[in-house]
Amino acid sequence: MIDINRNFEKLKGNYLFTEIARKVKESGVKNLISLGVGDIKLPLSKTVGKAFIKSAKEQKHLKTFKGYPPTLGYGFLRDAISLNYKKKNVKISTDEIFISDGAKSDICSLVDLLSPFTALVQSPSYPPYVDDNVIKGNSIKFVAARKENGFLPLPDEVEEESCVIYLCSPGNPTGVTYDYKSLQQWIDFALKTQSLIIFDGAYSEYVTGDYPKSIFALQNAKYCAIEINSFSKWASFTGMRCGYTVIPKKLKIGGKSLNELFFRRQSTAFNGVNYCVQKAAFAALSDKGYRECMRTVEYYLENVRILKRAVQKKGLYCVGGENSPYLWLECPNGMTSMEFFDYLLNNYSLVGTPGVGFGLEGEGYFRLTGFNFRKEILKAAKIIEDMSL
Amino acid sequence: MIDINRNFEKLKGNYLFTEIARKVKESGVKNLISLGVGDIKLPLSKTVGKAFIKSAKEQKHLKTFKGYPPTLGYGFLRDAISLNYKKKNVKISTDEIFISDGAKSDICSLVDLLSPFTALVQSPSYPPYVDDNVIKGNSIKFVAARKENGFLPLPDEVEEESCVIYLCSPGNPTGVTYDYKSLQQWIDFALKTQSLIIFDGAYSEYVTGDYPKSIFALQNAKYCAIEINSFSKWASFTGMRCGYTVIPKKLKIGGKSLNELFFRRQSTAFNGVNYCVQKAAFAALSDKGYRECMRTVEYYLENVRILKRAVQKKGLYCVGGENSPYLWLECPNGMTSMEFFDYLLNNYSLVGTPGVGFGLEGEGYFRLTGFNFRKEILKAAKIIEDMSL
Repeated sequence: MIDINRNFEKLKGNYLFTEIARKVKESGVKNLISLGVGDIKLPLSKTVGKAFIKSAKEQKHLKTFKGYPPTLGYGFLRDAISLNYKKKNVKISTDEIFISDGAKSDICSLVDLLSPFTALVQSPSYPPYVDDNVIKGNSIKFVAARKENGFLPLPDEVEEESCVIYLCSPGNPTGVTYDYKSLQQWIDFALKTQSLIIFDGAYSEYVTGDYPKSIFALQNAKYCAIEINSFSKWASFTGMRCGYTVIPKKLKIGGKSLNELFFRRQSTAFNGVNYCVQKAAFAALSDKGYRECMRTVEYYLENVRILKRAVQKKGLYCVGGENSPYLWLECPNGMTSMEFFDYLLNNYSLVGTPGVGFGLEGEGYFRLTGFNFRKEILKAAKIIEDMSL
Repeated sequence: MIDINRNFEKLKGNYLFTEIARKVKESGVKNLISLGVGDIKLPLSKTVGKAFIKSAKEQKHLKTFKGYPPTLGYGFLRDAISLNYKKKNVKISTDEIFISDGAKSDICSLVDLLSPFTALVQSPSYPPYVDDNVIKGNSIKFVAARKENGFLPLPDEVEEESCVIYLCSPGNPTGVTYDYKSLQQWIDFALKTQSLIIFDGAYSEYVTGDYPKSIFALQNAKYCAIEINSFSKWASFTGMRCGYTVIPKKLKIGGKSLNELFFRRQSTAFNGVNYCVQKAAFAALSDKGYRECMRTVEYYLENVRILKRAVQKKGLYCVGGENSPYLWLECPNGMTSMEFFDYLLNNYSLVGTPGVGFGLEGEGYFRLTGFNFRKEILKAAKIIEDMSL
């Protein structure tokens, strides 16, 4: 008798952001200041918007109309991504790049390439790392990201075994970033244990200090790592849907090329990304488009710095808020993260994300994002400074 | 030690369309007449194109910019799809509809909802039905679609066991359509054996005769079926990427709602479809947009009728070519489908799809599509009538 995949029953409650949306809705609070879900607020940049509209017009005319996109993405976009890596002194060839409709989709589809494995996931972390693996029946092993290790766990804290290691740097939700030395330790560990690193670089364009913007900036990473990235957070693409995954041709598991396997997987189960969206992404990588996008990134970075100053002024412990749009703070007076969430929502109409939603080790912490208008950020900063706790 | 998913090694060669593209490229033939891959040729309709451009402009401005789309799709589009069903006397509520980036993605993600199962697939059929299940380690049981059963196998040809039944009607590649009576037999079989039907209705808008345009037009289908559909083939959306899946709330497997499970799956592994694409899809469902799209459908239908007349004039056996953009013909002189493919490519620069690419029972047959300009179709018809075989 056919049956459902019973692994779904092992998933913890509702997906975090769905749950928060429900709570907010039920509260009935109006004029919320939303520093919760990591959605961006500023529109497409001038250059990007122009390219998007121009290509949208092409879809109306016989001579310029485009049907099925290439499964792996248009050459023009893959070349531009390769060039963007080159500017960061990282050599990635076009056929190592797979265009997708976003990082979240790829995080999930990469799981299909491997036989059942143990996933090594930081707690707290972005929920899909865990949930996708639970659904597919893989084992999860957690390593705590906490105050004591600066929210950046290192391999000496985990058992030596072959596994799939999820790393996100700059990190979501903690906003902290691995430096070259610590990230190299993970690569060396992966090579030694024949593990695979899935590196989520969705926030890499927020790096302004001397931190790696790509795992492939490090030695030997191409033998043990895949990098997932997205246009969402730096080019205002959350509503556009475009990301990419880099699978080096040197990467082999069980003697097989993961690049070839993913090509086969995508040919079977994916039909590519909208042409106009790819044209817009291409424009975001042009000199002018990129400069404009970086101004938006700087705006969000200044936002989160403002929040950080307010949190510090209030005397609360926090990390992140640099090289990242996220600030990770300790809840006041030993409150649980849900208590603090309810407190801010009900007393100040301020919405953040309770740390426990990102994993058990996130309990007692709270995530604020810089993704809002300056006016709202200043209001939020004042609320934090003045709150009664 | 982590290893690759060895099921990939069970996949047969390269994905059909990739393989054909390689052959065509290697032939070096110029000015091809392509009746191979089912990609559409006519651009977005006037109304659809206008809506797409208008919403693209919104993404440039602060006040109209949209970030993350709702995971399951915008309410306006889901409502419009529900209404489109209503016009066909099928009652589907908005929360039974999931918007996706295309039918192919959904065919694959639905597999994740179930524990390992036996897939009952027609041979020949659309390759992802088989490949996705091979990758996920499910068993495949084939039922032959051949001359003797009019390429429309019925349940009395298969063993009574609980399985997942893939049906595509109007069919790809055969172009034949189940009538009410035969489709009802599959539903009754599914109910009796506690099976699930995955009904692919990607070509349903091509139905002009008295055939079901949705499986939910039939009695009790809501207790045993999921319907996948797409804007690709009728609204010129192959390059846009938008489809949808209907999972009735009445549908339960192992006592659990598949609608709820898919909601959970999509929340975890999918981030929704581009806002402007959804606005364009919405416009395709408006009275005016729909009328325009139906004129395009009629254009392709006339194309395939022209091809059918030529094939019949040549004295070759064929089916389809009505209620469908596809014509399925027997290769002349007992040629294999690859021999006939090579013959047409090398002698006449005409590209079709060898039947064997859709499954072993497709050997000896050949698929032609009406998805091209009239001029090319007329050239192809002449080639067929005049060919030396």
